[in-house]
Amino acid sequence: MPKAVNIGIAGAGRIGQRHAKNLLTQIPNAHLVAVADVEKKRAQELAEKCGKIKWYDDYEKMLEQKDIEAVIISASTNVHKEIIISAASKGKHIFCEKPIALTLEETNEALVVVQEVGVLMQVGFMRRFDPALFSAKEEVDKGSIGKPLVFKAVSRDPEGPPLDYAQVSGGLFVDSAIHDIDLARWFMGSEVEKVYAEGRVLIYPEYKEFGDVDVAFTTLTFKNGGLGSIENSRRSGYGYDTRVEIVGSEGTLQVGYLRSRRFFRLNKSGVSHDVVPSWMERFSGAFVHELQHFVDCVMDNKTPLVTGIDGKKALEIALAATKSCQKGISITL
Amino acid sequence: MPKAVNIGIAGAGRIGQRHAKNLLTQIPNAHLVAVADVEKKRAQELAEKCGKIKWYDDYEKMLEQKDIEAVIISASTNVHKEIIISAASKGKHIFCEKPIALTLEETNEALVVVQEVGVLMQVGFMRRFDPALFSAKEEVDKGSIGKPLVFKAVSRDPEGPPLDYAQVSGGLFVDSAIHDIDLARWFMGSEVEKVYAEGRVLIYPEYKEFGDVDVAFTTLTFKNGGLGSIENSRRSGYGYDTRVEIVGSEGTLQVGYLRSRRFFRLNKSGVSHDVVPSWMERFSGAFVHELQHFVDCVMDNKTPLVTGIDGKKALEIALAATKSCQKGISITL
Amino acid sequence: MPKAVNIGIAGAGRIGQRHAKNLLTQIPNAHLVAVADVEKKRAQELAEKCGKIKWYDDYEKMLEQKDIEAVIISASTNVHKEIIISAASKGKHIFCEKPIALTLEETNEALVVVQEVGVLMQVGFMRRFDPALFSAKEEVDKGSIGKPLVFKAVSRDPEGPPLDYAQVSGGLFVDSAIHDIDLARWFMGSEVEKVYAEGRVLIYPEYKEFGDVDVAFTTLTFKNGGLGSIENSRRSGYGYDTRVEIVGSEGTLQVGYLRSRRFFRLNKSGVSHDVVPSWMERFSGAFVHELQHFVDCVMDNKTPLVTGIDGKKALEIALAATKSCQKGISITL
Amino acid sequence: MPKAVNIGIAGAGRIGQRHAKNLLTQIPNAHLVAVADVEKKRAQELAEKCGKIKWYDDYEKMLEQKDIEAVIISASTNVHKEIIISAASKGKHIFCEKPIALTLEETNEALVVVQEVGVLMQVGFMRRFDPALFSAKEEVDKGSIGKPLVFKAVSRDPEGPPLDYAQVSGGLFVDSAIHDIDLARWFMGSEVEKVYAEGRVLIYPEYKEFGDVDVAFTTLTFKNGGLGSIENSRRSGYGYDTRVEIVGSEGTLQVGYLRSRRFFRLNKSGVSHDVVPSWMERFSGAFVHELQHFVDCVMDNKTPLVTGIDGKKALEIALAATKSCQKGISITL
Repeated sequence: MPKAVNIGIAGAGRIGQRHAKNLLTQIPNAHLVAVADVEKKRAQELAEKCGKIKWYDDYEKMLEQKDIEAVIISASTNVHKEIIISAASKGKHIFCEKPIALTLEETNEALVVVQEVGVLMQVGFMRRFDPALFSAKEEVDKGSIGKPLVFKAVSRDPEGPPLDYAQVSGGLFVDSAIHDIDLARWFMGSEVEKVYAEGRVLIYPEYKEFGDVDVAFTTLTFKNGGLGSIENSRRSGYGYDTRVEIVGSEGTLQVGYLRSRRFFRLNKSGVSHDVVPSWMERFSGAFVHELQHFVDCVMDNKTPLVTGIDGKKALEIALAATKSCQKGISITL
Repeated sequence: MPKAVNIGIAGAGRIGQRHAKNLLTQIPNAHLVAVADVEKKRAQELAEKCGKIKWYDDYEKMLEQKDIEAVIISASTNVHKEIIISAASKGKHIFCEKPIALTLEETNEALVVVQEVGVLMQVGFMRRFDPALFSAKEEVDKGSIGKPLVFKAVSRDPEGPPLDYAQVSGGLFVDSAIHDIDLARWFMGSEVEKVYAEGRVLIYPEYKEFGDVDVAFTTLTFKNGGLGSIENSRRSGYGYDTRVEIVGSEGTLQVGYLRSRRFFRLNKSGVSHDVVPSWMERFSGAFVHELQHFVDCVMDNKTPLVTGIDGKKALEIALAATKSCQKGISITL
Repeated sequence: MPKAVNIGIAGAGRIGQRHAKNLLTQIPNAHLVAVADVEKKRAQELAEKCGKIKWYDDYEKMLEQKDIEAVIISASTNVHKEIIISAASKGKHIFCEKPIALTLEETNEALVVVQEVGVLMQVGFMRRFDPALFSAKEEVDKGSIGKPLVFKAVSRDPEGPPLDYAQVSGGLFVDSAIHDIDLARWFMGSEVEKVYAEGRVLIYPEYKEFGDVDVAFTTLTFKNGGLGSIENSRRSGYGYDTRVEIVGSEGTLQVGYLRSRRFFRLNKSGVSHDVVPSWMERFSGAFVHELQHFVDCVMDNKTPLVTGIDGKKALEIALAATKSCQKGISITL
Repeated sequence: MPKAVNIGIAGAGRIGQRHAKNLLTQIPNAHLVAVADVEKKRAQELAEKCGKIKWYDDYEKMLEQKDIEAVIISASTNVHKEIIISAASKGKHIFCEKPIALTLEETNEALVVVQEVGVLMQVGFMRRFDPALFSAKEEVDKGSIGKPLVFKAVSRDPEGPPLDYAQVSGGLFVDSAIHDIDLARWFMGSEVEKVYAEGRVLIYPEYKEFGDVDVAFTTLTFKNGGLGSIENSRRSGYGYDTRVEIVGSEGTLQVGYLRSRRFFRLNKSGVSHDVVPSWMERFSGAFVHELQHFVDCVMDNKTPLVTGIDGKKALEIALAATKSCQKGISITL
């Protein structure tokens, strides 16, 4: 058996549980050795499921465990910064869920320490690891559609998240559009120059109470001259729907599919097929591939495909979109 | 205005009415001058609708009208032969619905006269004039899939025809599969050598009473070495479904679509679109194009794309399939 | 034969020729009696083709022809206003190509006369008559996707128009986006409140010289609270690509197709099909249906589906988008 | 960590290697402990890759290893029988690649021993474990298309197998069509009554030398009255293409997809996407799921979804199709 990287998970919620399962069953060169969560019961239960590994109700204590080489941060966003700084200071490599933080200031504080210490850091923009999007990027890079001119994306959730999550999520742009923004930068190979966002509360009137929107269109202009347009919606009413189109000078690539079970039913009401129920199913492969990539980078001491800087840049654009949407003006970065 | 061909229609039923409408509104160089039907009322009504043209309750009388240059035969199959012979004898060009007759003997009698007199004759295999199938044939002919090796077709009606029609239709092979058989000969560019058909009564138990089947698979082998497989069904339960695939040595062409209204609906029951309701809608363009082709052939004195011989060859294969299905053996032609 | 409407065509260019052909061959209750064009030769040639009808090299003279009941205005946009006013004054019904004029002032001048006289007026937003879009509107109206919340459209031309046309076309928004804007108003059943447009010269550098863009995204907000997003491009590089999506509270409708010849080719380079080459092919049916609708409205004295007011409203939004794009700010109407 | 089943692999060729990899990385409750192959080097290399487990150049010796509870038989077909009998006699559970043997006699000899001893036996019809086909079967079983009436399948390999394999494979029906035949029995829920097959050498003239065909159509009739039609081809020229359709009394299910990388490319040659390159990619999930199912059945002492009897029945039909194709007659089972 090949050598493996010893890993601890900070945050045993839904995403943390998924990462744990993937590490255990899908990634041969990873060795999950500990799990921490401020909710003691959650930590204990996940540790039990993972073969009775160590558990902590204090992230700091877990980071002191000597044999841990890398940490996966899937705790709530408001504690990301402190865990990153502590982990980096102890020389542990970092995989952090998006967003790194809800402000650029906190993000900068964390990244400064990571850079000084020189540990690896990867941010959880798992879409880049989706086989469809990944191979579309390869196509763009080998020039099969000429120069990329326009980036388009649609991301519609099947239903909005629980209201208490929505309230602390950072809002539609920071919580959700940030994935599309990351893809926009990646596919266009250029930084964003100007942002205009128009959003409305069309589905969940409660969102008005905390100043968020549930449907939004974001227009991006890029430093290399390109244009971008992103649609985000908290509820499609029919399933999870995410699509990307890259328009180039010599052609176009369209990525996106809605079918889950892969068969068509034809009956007296017409032709139909089901849809992808949620991002969990749509990106199940991507979640495995991003962790595999992280573990491989740690073993080979290589820079990950999605760095802390990528996490920061996407946040910067998402915050600008939020401001544009609130003030009704375009924002130049 | 250009010169036009004077046309009479023999048979004012559903197909006759459609041909009349197409002649009047879609084919500028056709001039519909008379209509005949043994049902006096039907003739009278259609003549009225067509701008008060002449009408007859006797096909023979109409054929004596001097200014008629061409006749469209859409009367019931059992009178095709006599109308063809009479029309040909009077020097009138002939467009005849399929099948020419229910037996090879009657077909031969009719074709002999047509050939002796030298009038033009076209048979109503309208599918060859469908833009999709027509351009697929062009692709095959220019070699874009190499040598055609295999022909496949599916034809499913939305619902079975009225029982009294089904009983006199000649059966599933002569009434329905004959269209697919004609396409098979056309696309493969080769004659059929051997036929095996397997059919069952799976939908309409009444069909057993008159010895017909409602679902059948026909396997064809061609003189050039190719293979063919055709599925026919009297009822799909979801709409009209006709598809053709031509497999060549260098690739494959797939023709066929199920959408009618051309939009997708996505809601909580998934993704859906409607289907083509019937062959009337599916081949509405083909019905126009075949008549235009006939009228143009008459004006330019050219041989039509679908001749009387094509009508006879397809019937021969359909009759062999019927026999194979009844006896459980393969039939060599 | 039923009674027909006597029609004159003002403008014998590409669109005028198409309308002439459709009137002659597809619309039984229309009677094309005259054609006018300032280019004498063009008028003469079209009149010849249409069965030696009358022709004029002066629009005014044609409008004096007593038996003309309705006029189709397909001359260049800068003479629309004077022809509309003259035709209306003489009591002739009007079908006018889009845009009615390049300014709101000229549009108002023309509409005032039309309204005072009380003649019918239809504007050439033919897309509403496309069977796919028309039936999608029926679906929306019968509530099959709940309340419409978001309108999206993409319109990409295969190649940019001739440069001398582009220069006088009014620009990408007035010339091209205006079709999508009209659909937006129609599908959403609400007026536009605010417009933001971002455009760039990404394909044809020459456009910079006359201050136009060749790719643009327009964000719309509607008075009923909805949102809209439209992409327009002068060149797709692969064919004509126009798609519409209407997102409702209970589901979504997607309209649009890219296939022209309706078959798939599978060979060693993968699965492929062709694309719709141009709007002429894509909307060939719509051009017939809009004229049929106009002629029927004239005969039955009914208000057309697309009125002069619709023409004016769409222009107002297109002009606002142009201004937004130039100044980098959102425009409230 | 949960208890695991100790497994040995008999046959370290292409399929054996795949099973080994899946056991190691994808199936947590399996424990691969030994591998055997008559080619010593192949056994040694695979054992090395699997973490230096035990290896044998003699199947018999491996079966004597006490801690092995179950054996995966991926050796060449001609030694299946002896390995099955030996493994069963030693009380080891059996997963055997298809076909069990090339004759019904050998198959019976093996199954008799398995049944007497009472070990579990699963046959490698992995397609039943493909998520698309598996969920289509669930749809059929819950009645969503009414009673299944017709089964259709297409299976086209991208290229023919190596000639030396083709020669000993048992021929197109026993080697390849057997998968479709298994699906036919499974979906129809009925045994086959009569078989007619028509095959030709259309692609590889060498096949004539050993009496095989490279393209064939098989028509099946079922005891419950249904019909079936299967197309098999050794070479599509464009990729791996496998499709299944189940026609029911109330609708139809279509399973099958051709896309591998999940994006569309649109450029001046039209719209295109790639194809699935081979069955390895198409059924990669199914290979994992079938092994997981087998291991779970061993642990829970349950009968597998695909039993030895299923393997025998499919072989019986495949042999009948071979005979029908050779003699030109239909065969009643």
